[in-house]
Amino acid sequence: MIERAAQVSGSKAATICNGRRKTYVEVRDRITRFATALRSLGCNSDARVAVLALNSDRYFEAYFAVPWAGCQIVPLNIRWSLEENLYAVNDSETEILLFDDAFADTARQILGRGERVRRAVYIGEAEAPDWAENYESLVENASPAANANVPPGSPMGVFYTGGTTGFPKGVLHSHLAVWSSGMTGVIDFEIGEDARYLHAAPMFHMADYALMVITTIVSGTHVIVPMFDTVKVLSALQDEEVTHVVLVPAMIQMLLADPSIKNFDLSKLRRIIYGAAPITAAVLEKAMNTLPDTRFVQAFGQTELAPLATILRPRHHFPGSPKLRSAGRATYCVNVKIVDEAGNEVPRGEVGEVVVRGPNAMLGYWNHPELTAETLRDGWVHTGDAARMDEDGFIYIADRIKDMIITGGENVFSAEVENAISSHEHVADVAVIGIPSEEWGESVHAIVILNEGGKLTEVEIIAHCRERIAGYKCPKSVEFRFEPFPLSGANKVLKTELRKPHWRGHTREVN
Amino acid sequence: MIERAAQVSGSKAATICNGRRKTYVEVRDRITRFATALRSLGCNSDARVAVLALNSDRYFEAYFAVPWAGCQIVPLNIRWSLEENLYAVNDSETEILLFDDAFADTARQILGRGERVRRAVYIGEAEAPDWAENYESLVENASPAANANVPPGSPMGVFYTGGTTGFPKGVLHSHLAVWSSGMTGVIDFEIGEDARYLHAAPMFHMADYALMVITTIVSGTHVIVPMFDTVKVLSALQDEEVTHVVLVPAMIQMLLADPSIKNFDLSKLRRIIYGAAPITAAVLEKAMNTLPDTRFVQAFGQTELAPLATILRPRHHFPGSPKLRSAGRATYCVNVKIVDEAGNEVPRGEVGEVVVRGPNAMLGYWNHPELTAETLRDGWVHTGDAARMDEDGFIYIADRIKDMIITGGENVFSAEVENAISSHEHVADVAVIGIPSEEWGESVHAIVILNEGGKLTEVEIIAHCRERIAGYKCPKSVEFRFEPFPLSGANKVLKTELRKPHWRGHTREVN
Repeated sequence: MIERAAQVSGSKAATICNGRRKTYVEVRDRITRFATALRSLGCNSDARVAVLALNSDRYFEAYFAVPWAGCQIVPLNIRWSLEENLYAVNDSETEILLFDDAFADTARQILGRGERVRRAVYIGEAEAPDWAENYESLVENASPAANANVPPGSPMGVFYTGGTTGFPKGVLHSHLAVWSSGMTGVIDFEIGEDARYLHAAPMFHMADYALMVITTIVSGTHVIVPMFDTVKVLSALQDEEVTHVVLVPAMIQMLLADPSIKNFDLSKLRRIIYGAAPITAAVLEKAMNTLPDTRFVQAFGQTELAPLATILRPRHHFPGSPKLRSAGRATYCVNVKIVDEAGNEVPRGEVGEVVVRGPNAMLGYWNHPELTAETLRDGWVHTGDAARMDEDGFIYIADRIKDMIITGGENVFSAEVENAISSHEHVADVAVIGIPSEEWGESVHAIVILNEGGKLTEVEIIAHCRERIAGYKCPKSVEFRFEPFPLSGANKVLKTELRKPHWRGHTREVN
Repeated sequence: MIERAAQVSGSKAATICNGRRKTYVEVRDRITRFATALRSLGCNSDARVAVLALNSDRYFEAYFAVPWAGCQIVPLNIRWSLEENLYAVNDSETEILLFDDAFADTARQILGRGERVRRAVYIGEAEAPDWAENYESLVENASPAANANVPPGSPMGVFYTGGTTGFPKGVLHSHLAVWSSGMTGVIDFEIGEDARYLHAAPMFHMADYALMVITTIVSGTHVIVPMFDTVKVLSALQDEEVTHVVLVPAMIQMLLADPSIKNFDLSKLRRIIYGAAPITAAVLEKAMNTLPDTRFVQAFGQTELAPLATILRPRHHFPGSPKLRSAGRATYCVNVKIVDEAGNEVPRGEVGEVVVRGPNAMLGYWNHPELTAETLRDGWVHTGDAARMDEDGFIYIADRIKDMIITGGENVFSAEVENAISSHEHVADVAVIGIPSEEWGESVHAIVILNEGGKLTEVEIIAHCRERIAGYKCPKSVEFRFEPFPLSGANKVLKTELRKPHWRGHTREVN
C-alpha cells in the first residue's frame, strides 16, 4: 500500500510530526532503506523487531519497513512495566528493539536482559546513546531494499493483548488480516484520499494501527502527536485540519471538559471513531453541541480481529437513538454470530457469546497452540464477549463471558449490575464479581468506591438495585474500597485480581 | 456476504427480476436449499457446475449456492457456439449444467456430448423439459445446507476468457480474489447500502459478476434484465430507481442514440461504470447533457484480475479533462507497474507491459500450468497490455502487446494507427496488423471497412495518416474489406484471424 500511495500521491504529505513533513515518496524511500538496514543488522526474514516508543513518524515508518524486510513487528505496550515488556520480548524471541527518549532506560535493560535481543535502535529526537544504533544514520547509509513480497497469508506482526488473564498473549496477524480490516475500515469510516488522520491514540495499539493502515490505503495524511494531551490534540486538530481521529470515550470526555476547546476551530473534523464502550447520550449530546461539524462512529472488536468486528454508523448517533447502546452491525469484512456454549446460533434477542469469522481473523496466539484451539474454532474467533443481537443485526454487549456470574442457575451480567449501582450519585466506581456461595454456586458481590464525602451503606446499595433490576441480579454482599481498581494495560478493571482473594481454596471455571 | 446481508438487511429486496422480488432472507434460504440439492445430485466438494443462461435471479442464486455447497461455478459465454461451450464444459470437467429457455437446445446437446456432464437443471421461466431437473422443485424439496466454509484461498469458480488466441482459457479464481476485488469496488464505485444495481451486462462476464459481489457486500438491491435492450434497460433504470449500472461504451452510445431516452426519468442513476475502452469526449459530453445527474467511472482490468486493476474516477470525467484518455490509477487492491521485457519497471512516460499484483490475482489458468507460469510471475499478473504511466500514476493503454507491430526496430501501436485512420469520415471500421516484410521484419498493414457510399483509395488513407502520425507508423499497405471483422466473445476484433492469411509460411513470435 505504501508503493501505491507513493505512485498515486507521491508528493503529498504522508506524515506530519514534530514540525517534520515527509511526502509519500520520501517515506517510501526511508522505509525501503531501513529495511536494508534491518537486514544488515542480521535480521533474517522471520526475525521479530519490537518497538517501545511514543507515537512518531519513525514509528510509522517502522510499521512498514519491518514487513518490507520480511520481518515481523512487535509493538510493545507503553503502559507496561519492565517485567511485562521483558516477558513479551522474550516470548516473541525479539532480536531488535526500537525505542525513543521516553523508554531509553527500559530499552537499555531489555537489551541487557532480553534473551535474544541483539541490538537496539534509537528513534528519538536527540542523540542516540552509545549502546544503540541511530535510526537516522542507518536510513541515510542504506540503499533501498526490494519488497520482501511475502504471501498475503504469512505473518506480519505479533500484537500483545490482555494481561487480564495472567500473561499477555501475542496475537499473530497476517498481512491479509491487517489489509482486509483496513479495506472494510475505509468503507465503514468513510475515509477518502483527502483524509487527515490524527494519531492521538497510542500507535502500539491495534485500534490506532488499523487507522494507520486505512489512511495509508487511501494515501491520506498522518498527523502524529507523541501521546494524548488535550491541548496538543486540540491544536493538532485545528492546525493540521484533521478530518478523522480515534478516541476512547474517556478521551472524548477530557476534550469536552477542557474549557479551551472553544478557542479552537474544529470545523474540519468530520469523524470521531470511538471504541471500548458505548457513548452515553449525555456525552454525545454535549459533543454534538460542541462539535456541530463532527459525526461519530463506534467500532467494536479486539486485537484478535485486527481489530474490527462491528460498526455503529454516524446515522445511529443522535440523542434518543434506539441503537445508541449497541455496538452496531457486522463490518463488510466479517460474519458475526451469537452462539451458545455448543457453538449453535441462539435466537435473536438471547444472550450468547459473540463469534466472528473473516479474513481479518488472527493466525493464532504466538506460542500458545492450546489457547489458539480454544479461541479459533472452525475459523470463528470466540471473542469472550457476551451479547445479544436484535432483529436488524445490531449487537448489544452484555458482559465479558468470564465476568458473567452464574447464581442459582441464572446468568447475571456484571455490567448490568454495575450500571445500576453506578447510577447512584454517591458512587464513584464499582466492580461486580461472582464469589463462591454454597447455596447459589456463585453469588453477586459488589465492590464500591464512593465519591469523596459520599455516604452509603451495603443495605442502601442493595435497595437502590432492587428498584432497578431483578432481585436475583442484586448483590448479596457489598464491599467498600478506598483505592482505585487495578487496571490492565488497556485500562480495563482486572476482575481476575478482584476475584482472587475470594476464590482462594475454591475453583472457578474461568478466571 | 449473503449471510451478512440476510442478517443486516434481511427484509430488503435482494433481487428484482421478471416482476419477482425476493428479500435477502428469502434468497439466502433458497441458496442454502439449492446447495443441498446440488449435493443430492451427487456433487462432491470440488465438482464444477456450469451455467449457460441469460441474466436472472436464479442465475444470481446459483453464483452463491454453488460455492456455498463447496463446488466451483463455471459461467459460460452466451455468445459462444456449441463447440466452444462444449470445449469449456469438457475442459473444466463440469458435472452439472444449469440452463434457461434461451439455451435449451444447446444444453440438451451438451448433456449428450459433454464428457462428464451428468445432469442438467432448468432455471427458465416455463416447464422443465423431461430430460432436465427443475430448479424450483429442487429448491422447494431440499432443506437448507450449512455453508461449506472453504478457506478464502481455495477455488470458487472457473471463468473462461479469450478465444482470441485459439482456445478459451479457464481462469481459476479464489474466494479471496473475488472478495478483495469486490471490497475495492465498493470504495472505487462509491456504492453504499442504498445502491440499486442493474444487471444489464451479461452475468457470465466478470465485469457484471464483480458488481454482483460489490452490491451484495453492501446488501444493495439487484435489478435484473435478461439481456441488454435499450428500452428494457431504460425502463428498468426508471421504474426500479437504479443507482448504478455497468455498460460498455457501445451500450452507452446505443442508449444515447435511442430517441425515447428523453421520455424516461433517469435522475436516480448516480454512476455509469464503463470499461473495455476509454470514453470519447464527444460521447461523454452528450451523456452529460442527457444525464445531468449521472457521473462516470472507467474500470480497467481483465478476467485474470477478478477483474479490477485501475479506475478513472468521476472527477476526471469532464470534457477537456487531461486524464480522460487514461484508464485511471491503481485500485486500493493492487500494485500496478509498467515493465520492460525483463520485468524491470520502465521510467514514467515510457511504454511497457502493464503488470498487476494483489489479492485479486487469479490462482492460475485451469489445466494450463505453462500458460500460468508465463502470465503469473512472482505474483505479478502480466496483462498483455502495453501502456505508459504518467507522473500522477495514471496509465494510458497503447495496445495489446501481441498486436504491437515491430517494424524496422520501432514499436508501432496498432491502436494509434487505427485512431488516425478512423478519424476519416469515410471509414466505418479499421484494423491494423503487422504483416511479414523482408525489409522491415514486419510492416504496418491496414484493413479498412468504408462507410456505405464512402470512397477512399489506399494512397488517400496513407496520406491521411501522414498528416497525423509519424511516417514509420503509417501503413505501407491498405486492404479494403466488405464484411464485418471477426469478433471474439468479448466483441474484440480477432486480429489473429486477420493475420493468419498473411503469415502462412512465416513465423510470428506472438499470435
